[in-house]
Amino acid sequence: MFELRLVQGSLLKKVLEAIKDLVNDANFDCSATGFSLQAMDPSHVALVALLLRPDGFEHYRCDRNISMGMNLNNMSKILKCGGNDDIITIRADDGSDTVTFMFESPNGSANFEMNLMDIDSEHHGIDESKCCAVVRMPSSEFQRICKVLSSIGDTVVISVTNEGVQFSTRGDIGTANIVCRQNINVDKPEESTVIEMSQPVSSQFPLRYMNSFTKATPLSNTVTISLTSELLLAVEYTIAEMGYIRFYLAPKIEDLAEALGLE
Amino acid sequence: MFELRLVQGSLLKKVLEAIKDLVNDANFDCSATGFSLQAMDPSHVALVALLLRPDGFEHYRCDRNISMGMNLNNMSKILKCGGNDDIITIRADDGSDTVTFMFESPNGSANFEMNLMDIDSEHHGIDESKCCAVVRMPSSEFQRICKVLSSIGDTVVISVTNEGVQFSTRGDIGTANIVCRQNINVDKPEESTVIEMSQPVSSQFPLRYMNSFTKATPLSNTVTISLTSELLLAVEYTIAEMGYIRFYLAPKIEDLAEALGLE
Amino acid sequence: MFELRLVQGSLLKKVLEAIKDLVNDANFDCSATGFSLQAMDPSHVALVALLLRPDGFEHYRCDRNISMGMNLNNMSKILKCGGNDDIITIRADDGSDTVTFMFESPNGSANFEMNLMDIDSEHHGIDESKCCAVVRMPSSEFQRICKVLSSIGDTVVISVTNEGVQFSTRGDIGTANIVCRQNINVDKPEESTVIEMSQPVSSQFPLRYMNSFTKATPLSNTVTISLTSELLLAVEYTIAEMGYIRFYLAPKIEDLAEALGLE
Repeated sequence: MFELRLVQGSLLKKVLEAIKDLVNDANFDCSATGFSLQAMDPSHVALVALLLRPDGFEHYRCDRNISMGMNLNNMSKILKCGGNDDIITIRADDGSDTVTFMFESPNGSANFEMNLMDIDSEHHGIDESKCCAVVRMPSSEFQRICKVLSSIGDTVVISVTNEGVQFSTRGDIGTANIVCRQNINVDKPEESTVIEMSQPVSSQFPLRYMNSFTKATPLSNTVTISLTSELLLAVEYTIAEMGYIRFYLAPKIEDLAEALGLE
Repeated sequence: MFELRLVQGSLLKKVLEAIKDLVNDANFDCSATGFSLQAMDPSHVALVALLLRPDGFEHYRCDRNISMGMNLNNMSKILKCGGNDDIITIRADDGSDTVTFMFESPNGSANFEMNLMDIDSEHHGIDESKCCAVVRMPSSEFQRICKVLSSIGDTVVISVTNEGVQFSTRGDIGTANIVCRQNINVDKPEESTVIEMSQPVSSQFPLRYMNSFTKATPLSNTVTISLTSELLLAVEYTIAEMGYIRFYLAPKIEDLAEALGLE
Repeated sequence: MFELRLVQGSLLKKVLEAIKDLVNDANFDCSATGFSLQAMDPSHVALVALLLRPDGFEHYRCDRNISMGMNLNNMSKILKCGGNDDIITIRADDGSDTVTFMFESPNGSANFEMNLMDIDSEHHGIDESKCCAVVRMPSSEFQRICKVLSSIGDTVVISVTNEGVQFSTRGDIGTANIVCRQNINVDKPEESTVIEMSQPVSSQFPLRYMNSFTKATPLSNTVTISLTSELLLAVEYTIAEMGYIRFYLAPKIEDLAEALGLE
């Protein structure tokens, strides 16, 4: 049997909102490591990796590793059925083809039984050691920049230097350049922009995917953007005391599987 | 001549919002009993009954009983023309084919003359003595439940027992069960869930109509849901110190007129 | 070279929102008089005139008069790229076919280069001496009235008398009359309705254009509505300490150029 109980049920709603537009169907992997998911978008340009560690749950029981295939849109519908302050329990019996979601509030309870799916998937190992520039900035500012640039062009060039990170695009209207300078705010560290890099780096990405990643903004005040020496982009939102959601994006034109060096 | 004057004009706006999606055209009956309406939806599955008593108006004059046929969508458009704090006066002269709506505010006034319609209607007597289970609960909670279940299925089974009231549905995604327990809140009685019943009862209804009924939610903090021994559903919202709006719904498949035992 | 710097950058956003639905492409004229625009809507029924005086800018430099043709929709897209508290700088080099918008905030900067267009235009002198009735009223109230009347009819009759100003319309539903009385509010002058007139006047206008004018409402708490003896309507929103935006509208059916007595 697999069972988890999450007091802050609204967090799971936010996780689903963050990934359901990128991925339609995915396997949730349940193990001693935690409740996790790794899936590529249908065009194999982006990859999302989610981890919620066991100690973040009020109760976490996983008798043996299982993989539950879910339609994320349906799962999101069910999670929206719970109130924002509800406690959520997810339970699956061994060998069952359904999963049960239970919502508890002071005045009552609700339970939903959702059909599981068989989904083929392969797990990708990602080598992040080649990271050569890391930018941590307010997640809302990153979201605003992606949105703004999409109104001008389709592709963004991200360039990181010691002075700051620059986002540029070009479209029929003209050109746009947005620069965020390194900026340490001691009183409000979550409003800081911090740049760490071994060498200047620049790469180009489709804005459509970056806008999709920013749907994770409600999960965290800050976002960490990394560019590897292979010019791959990683965008990470930490989920307080529980884990993270990470998005990987291939540079424009190239194929992600190749860029990731996947076997 | 018929004339009524309502200081809290926004209340009439809310009444129209509550019924205009269910019924297109209806007769407003004006008599010594009050300003009332009874109408069936076009497919004869649901019935709405509205009563606003004379003593709820600042002024109410009704020289003789009249019936004014109105298109509720047009009436709603006109009511929306008034500010939220406006005083509304409705006036109809005997034999006139128009009705006048006047709005007064500190800075000015507005008046609208709307064409009346001839609408055939018959008045239905409803026998509510056969009621066998009554649930009073917060109207916002009932609204949330109807909305949530509609995202999963089309039909809800409502079951009332001594422990609570259960709302269940089933769809392609899976199944859903929501239970509201009896729950007396002495400090905030409007947040209580109170169940009175002579015997357990269960019946099945189309969710589309129930969602439509919940448009009356802004009129009252609480809603009263009754199931009769004929398995008919009655949903009542009281209108403070003035009257009520009641919706009746036939169980799934059966015809309402038959279920109501209408002559 | 032309360069202006505006500390309250959000003001320029509001100006564009106010005019971009009425006019697609227009020349911004830059001279010692200020940053201005005059343009007719495509069907030549309405005219908009904008003036932002040099002393309203933190910095204003205009070496010689230039006229910059811009697509207002594209310009609006770029202005929306700035944060609400950003400082905006607009710069154009002599003979350049682009204009640059720069946004500065504490944490970074953004710059956008937009392509200019060649637009034919003629400047119209408007004789406002023939004004015979002027109404100053809260801009939000004027906006509400235009919106309300559009839900009933297409054309409004505006009549000004000593008692007040009346807005009337007629449609399939029936008729509507809204009266705003003269009303001097000493404590909150911006909530006053003040009428000045030499003789009673009445004229008829298409509501579609008036609704478009009210998109300037965020620029000013009050609006000034003038009717000339030629029955032309002028609607003015002042822009605090900087200038104004004025809309002129031909009476229904007649052509604006004729009504304005344009050469």
